[in-house]
Amino acid sequence: MQRFNELLALVSEEVEKLKYQNEPRELYEPIEYIMGLGGKRLRPIVCLMSCEMFGGNIDKAMHAALGMEMFHNFTLVHDDIMDSAQFRRGKPTVHINWNENRALLSGDAMIILANKLMMKVDDHFLREVMEVYNNTGLKVCDGQQLDLNFEQRDVISMDEYMKMIKLKTAVLIAGCLRMGAVIAGTSTRNKDLIEEFGLNLGISFQIEDDLLDSFGDYEKFGKKIGGDILINKKTFLLVKAMEIADQATRKKIDYWLSLKDFNKNEKLDSLLSIFKDLNIKEIALQESKLYFENAIIALDQIKVPLKDKMQLKQFAYLLINREY
Amino acid sequence: MQRFNELLALVSEEVEKLKYQNEPRELYEPIEYIMGLGGKRLRPIVCLMSCEMFGGNIDKAMHAALGMEMFHNFTLVHDDIMDSAQFRRGKPTVHINWNENRALLSGDAMIILANKLMMKVDDHFLREVMEVYNNTGLKVCDGQQLDLNFEQRDVISMDEYMKMIKLKTAVLIAGCLRMGAVIAGTSTRNKDLIEEFGLNLGISFQIEDDLLDSFGDYEKFGKKIGGDILINKKTFLLVKAMEIADQATRKKIDYWLSLKDFNKNEKLDSLLSIFKDLNIKEIALQESKLYFENAIIALDQIKVPLKDKMQLKQFAYLLINREY
Repeated sequence: MQRFNELLALVSEEVEKLKYQNEPRELYEPIEYIMGLGGKRLRPIVCLMSCEMFGGNIDKAMHAALGMEMFHNFTLVHDDIMDSAQFRRGKPTVHINWNENRALLSGDAMIILANKLMMKVDDHFLREVMEVYNNTGLKVCDGQQLDLNFEQRDVISMDEYMKMIKLKTAVLIAGCLRMGAVIAGTSTRNKDLIEEFGLNLGISFQIEDDLLDSFGDYEKFGKKIGGDILINKKTFLLVKAMEIADQATRKKIDYWLSLKDFNKNEKLDSLLSIFKDLNIKEIALQESKLYFENAIIALDQIKVPLKDKMQLKQFAYLLINREY
Repeated sequence: MQRFNELLALVSEEVEKLKYQNEPRELYEPIEYIMGLGGKRLRPIVCLMSCEMFGGNIDKAMHAALGMEMFHNFTLVHDDIMDSAQFRRGKPTVHINWNENRALLSGDAMIILANKLMMKVDDHFLREVMEVYNNTGLKVCDGQQLDLNFEQRDVISMDEYMKMIKLKTAVLIAGCLRMGAVIAGTSTRNKDLIEEFGLNLGISFQIEDDLLDSFGDYEKFGKKIGGDILINKKTFLLVKAMEIADQATRKKIDYWLSLKDFNKNEKLDSLLSIFKDLNIKEIALQESKLYFENAIIALDQIKVPLKDKMQLKQFAYLLINREY
């Protein structure tokens, strides 16, 4: 994955070069902090890869790519407030490191900084890029609202769950890909297909992410197993389990979800054992694979030379191909 | 003030016509609520007045004016979270009416909705309008951060206070005026002057607003007297009083600010009496008048026929001319 690493280095360098105002420090310090926490920079990278695949100049897509990364990081800061999350990328979240007001206001400022980065694209693509940006951003808010709604509800249908992850996760990846395509100046058909690729890949990626929480390898991924389970998070696994469980199993699930006080290991073992009995891991892998295949089908239909698709195809396999 | 009322009617009608997505209701309901609470719609109105003064077509400025009103209302929603404010325009604030997460997320969505409104301006002005919009928005965040900082500090200098109200309040009014001028296609000199007018008027307006809290007529303005005093808010009055008080008076001020438990009327009477002894009301009126005069000087320098300036001049007098 040489090109991925090259683009990661390039994006990281550009992120580091972003200059913020000095004053008020209280506002810009959290922005530098969250932008400096790193992460895989997946969104700007796929934006550049898409631009490159369609024969565009990635220099022309860099500001938009950085704008999307800024926007993504704003969503992390505000989502972490809403979820009362303590850690992000192994470090204290912004509202924990400082306070909620500073996290709130810094997040607001990040949207405007993202706006400003977006406005640096060439006139020729400006309106279309801004349309992708604003439509994508609003959908991400819609998705976060659905996710918040789920916390208040006992039962979520699989349709509702899929709609939520599509809006909250897949749309932003798809938007980044489409943006790269817009800046490369490719056909509408190609733009639609690369977006379709991104939507399917994003959904596949989110299901894998849900899987990772319950069945991931701690040594390999550095994430603690079962965090989602302990807080009753409506993941693909839980939603599917509630959908297919028989009455007796469903009662057991409801019992564990209803407990306010519990032994963590006991709750974890019990729900993982239910997931195992219901074949949830295999079902989730199957579903993820389906979306992944749809992503590849969309990619295959794109009208560019086969060799030019290799980077994004390799990237897709790398993104999803995890061991359990 | 016939033209003001006509423009208010026009803007109110356009605000009512704004269409929001139906789903998720939890996200868009608070947006409809805050946008429907009314208010004087000062910001979009001055944007249109400025456009009109420079011979522009107000239809071409309407979307930008609405975008600024949407942005202003976003700041209200988020500021109310940060200030733990219970009421806004006599109604429960968004985070009180629903909850903080919904207020936070709805505010985020409002920035994007404001972005989308801004993008509706003609190509010819797009970049300049977006530059005014983004620069203004970021300054408003800077100003809110300074205001938050002030809460944590015992002493604020008059310079710091003036900088804060300039950023938090005046810049947005000035930005709206400049935007109208941009869309009317006037000269750079005229754009600078109308912005200067707005900055000075905005500062004058904010000092008057501070005065209103301590010396306003409840019957006339429906605001309770002394809300700012009770929460130790760093207003022009308090900052000035701390600046000019002798040691003994300063001790009295510090005493009242330091009390955690107090009789409200007692604290109010004591601080109002100190303000009276220090002539704070007269000093504030004088300062407000100075900025107001500077606003009028800037307006007078603008190169358009005298009669075309009358609407904004009348508006300025109406905005500031309050009785105590």
